Amino acid sequence: MGFFEKKLSGKRVYSGKILNLEVDEVGLADGSVSVREVVRHSGGAAVLYVEDGKALLVKQFRYPYGKEIYEIPAGKIDEGESPYAAAQRELEEETGFKAELSPLARIYPSPGYTDEIIYIFLAKNSTRSRQNLDKGEFLTAEFIPLDKVVNMVESGEICDAKTVTAICKYLAFVQKK
Amino acid sequence: MGFFEKKLSGKRVYSGKILNLEVDEVGLADGSVSVREVVRHSGGAAVLYVEDGKALLVKQFRYPYGKEIYEIPAGKIDEGESPYAAAQRELEEETGFKAELSPLARIYPSPGYTDEIIYIFLAKNSTRSRQNLDKGEFLTAEFIPLDKVVNMVESGEICDAKTVTAICKYLAFVQKK
Repeated sequence: MGFFEKKLSGKRVYSGKILNLEVDEVGLADGSVSVREVVRHSGGAAVLYVEDGKALLVKQFRYPYGKEIYEIPAGKIDEGESPYAAAQRELEEETGFKAELSPLARIYPSPGYTDEIIYIFLAKNSTRSRQNLDKGEFLTAEFIPLDKVVNMVESGEICDAKTVTAICKYLAFVQKK
Repeated sequence: MGFFEKKLSGKRVYSGKILNLEVDEVGLADGSVSVREVVRHSGGAAVLYVEDGKALLVKQFRYPYGKEIYEIPAGKIDEGESPYAAAQRELEEETGFKAELSPLARIYPSPGYTDEIIYIFLAKNSTRSRQNLDKGEFLTAEFIPLDKVVNMVESGEICDAKTVTAICKYLAFVQKK
């Protein structure tokens, strides 16, 4: 038998461009009442593309941290879009590659306060198309030797959760097979 | 040379218990103006504790997903608290173990919209204390064979980002050494 939290009431306190914020009153296992602050997000899709011993990363300014960081290509899933289609679209827009994808991982980035799911795919049979960034999107895409990327994950220079997950799952469950 | 986004103005649209939400106007690299919605969070601290081939996990109801999930012990860093102290405190509160910790990873869970950093530590030299959950906190702690945990990560049954990161980094960079 597990624990459960029952929604008693809820209000939308912010409706935005990439997220909404809801604050709900919930009934807990002991009958007491608490508050849950929940970011409602449509989900993210990301792609690990490894070719000739190199991984394709993008370097992008991330405003919440005030700096550029390395990540695998990724973006927000649009309304009504599948994770697969979003991942294909983001890969092509951000890097100019089209590819077939297979599921690699699915992560809950911070389950205490967001309902986002990030779907991570592995690319294969890629072909070159062309980069086509969204308006207001600025990033550079580059192939980096996988050994170097692994070192950057180990040292903590790469700390984006989806990128760490993708590289580590690739090492642990794909490459070794 | 990299890209940069400059804050032009900002407003706090929500001040909460575990997060605040700010909406800023920013100047982009091409001189255009956009909006950034940012969850401001004090950070998280988590602990991977492996002993006798078993990993200590907690099973907890996560309201944003409406279900119980497995995670390594973790919690929010309090105002003025260090990541190390928060990790020690959460490990003891949630599982009843005290331990020395060493840094294992640091992750940005979803860099598009939150400034949270989750600090993950590896426990050693643990001693038993007693579980002391916060009011309104309900979870169960259990030791699960590491092989099984690895299978749960590979299959996607475990998809909490900090837990996937901790287990994968442990496999890739700690256990193999």
